[in-house]
Amino acid sequence: MDNFSNLVYGFIGLGLMGGSFAKAIRAKLLAGPAAAGKILALDSNRAALDAAMERGVADEVFGTDAAATMLKCCDVVFICLYPAKTIEFLKKYRDDFKSGSVVSDISGVKAGLIEALPGILRDDVDFISGHPMAGNEKEGFYYSSGCIFEGRNYILIPHAANKPENLAFFKALTGALGFSRITETDYASHDHKVAFTSQLCHVIASALVESAEDTEITAFGGGSFEDLTRIAMINAPLWTELFLANRGELLRHIAAFESSLKKITALIGRADGEGLCGYLEAVRLKRSAMSLTESKVTGEPPHPQK
Amino acid sequence: MDNFSNLVYGFIGLGLMGGSFAKAIRAKLLAGPAAAGKILALDSNRAALDAAMERGVADEVFGTDAAATMLKCCDVVFICLYPAKTIEFLKKYRDDFKSGSVVSDISGVKAGLIEALPGILRDDVDFISGHPMAGNEKEGFYYSSGCIFEGRNYILIPHAANKPENLAFFKALTGALGFSRITETDYASHDHKVAFTSQLCHVIASALVESAEDTEITAFGGGSFEDLTRIAMINAPLWTELFLANRGELLRHIAAFESSLKKITALIGRADGEGLCGYLEAVRLKRSAMSLTESKVTGEPPHPQK
Repeated sequence: MDNFSNLVYGFIGLGLMGGSFAKAIRAKLLAGPAAAGKILALDSNRAALDAAMERGVADEVFGTDAAATMLKCCDVVFICLYPAKTIEFLKKYRDDFKSGSVVSDISGVKAGLIEALPGILRDDVDFISGHPMAGNEKEGFYYSSGCIFEGRNYILIPHAANKPENLAFFKALTGALGFSRITETDYASHDHKVAFTSQLCHVIASALVESAEDTEITAFGGGSFEDLTRIAMINAPLWTELFLANRGELLRHIAAFESSLKKITALIGRADGEGLCGYLEAVRLKRSAMSLTESKVTGEPPHPQK
Repeated sequence: MDNFSNLVYGFIGLGLMGGSFAKAIRAKLLAGPAAAGKILALDSNRAALDAAMERGVADEVFGTDAAATMLKCCDVVFICLYPAKTIEFLKKYRDDFKSGSVVSDISGVKAGLIEALPGILRDDVDFISGHPMAGNEKEGFYYSSGCIFEGRNYILIPHAANKPENLAFFKALTGALGFSRITETDYASHDHKVAFTSQLCHVIASALVESAEDTEITAFGGGSFEDLTRIAMINAPLWTELFLANRGELLRHIAAFESSLKKITALIGRADGEGLCGYLEAVRLKRSAMSLTESKVTGEPPHPQK
């Protein structure tokens, strides 16, 4: 595939994530006068499209009835919709993607999508499923930013039909957009691990806020409560869909967390200072080892980008 | 009491918190050439004292056997020890504080301390108990910083014997060190609320790390897990003491949190999308209302400081 700066990028959905990807591509890949590439965007929200045009993020915008027209022009397509809508879109417009194009998604749960692949895949269109591990507690294009991917994790879920050169291209592309650690895994492993690092954390943060006696409590906050609950300012419909789509994995992690919580609660309950101190020491070591986990960027950019 | 810049400040304990207070006072109150005030510091850790002298944070340092000598010179004393040691120190050196001095502490739990007051108070020394709601997951003078109080909450636990002018002085002092919201409350209310905003959060973060399957999981992190568990890099002996000293309150908050967690888990378990979305919407509104809680700084500095 061509150099990043000569490609036509298409966005299906221009909310927080679509907007952030589009802004990152504009700033990092299509900034110079020599860049012949373009950004096309489709959304049902006219205000988001207008804002993208006014700010020079998009070159052309399309309403939802013009999806087929837009897709025919795109070398790279980012589908930035909720998980179920992503599958619907891929099925509905299967025949409209440009031959040779690379198509990706941002779904936070992968099982349903990967299992639907037989009805989605075309020989001449490469669908590469990915999960950018970045976000914001705010929603919509207005809050999108080209910087949110800087230094973050990106998870790639390749499948047998992916062409190696397209995978290499896509890894280089996400690296060029700021992601520093790109991990390849299968969809079951993705859903299992993300249920822990992301969905369980949102469940815990939500339950913690729910259990607060009043909203004045923050006068007594020292940063811990604030940090633990920032993500409780949640996009309710999206997270409802994510929790339910990954229900089995999430329920298993909640149960494991509850069991860990019971362990420490029992130590506190029986005032077992030695046992409690040992529990906390082990946790400290474990969490510190996590901070030290080495970055595991895979692949070298085929087209060096600065 | 005199202008902030002419006072002698004494630190009992020069770890993360003592060091941070000393550095903030040095930078904000004793920086100019006209400042006649001094900082004296006592610690059992010689390396911390040497570092404080080398970096110009302390003017004079003392070993633990010289507490009485040092106290006699101090207008303001910050006791920056663990809670039980703070009570011990106050009792042991009761007669050595300078007449007219203001003495404070940083204990994260107040019941034991305030209940011990009858054996501690002197008519001519004002003990003003406080809790700076700031910190760091790292320990010791090396990691201390004069900036950690900027914009943070400070909780003041006045008692009947406190002189109004000393309370006003102390509020102005903490305000000058960077705290932006100073809340007055009684010790029972402090312990109840801090058990929620601080201790419960540390319990949850610790249990979440304990429940992680491996330390490689951070390759799948998108910031939520990292934010929720940073405080799990915990000072185990200190937090063991805090959890046990405030056991009753903490256990009640854990139970309330578990019940909130059960509620959301049940919604996920029976795939109740509508109920789940409602739960998450309510949480979002509640947490957003918390962010909007107005700052409630009380008192004006009697000695304007810049």
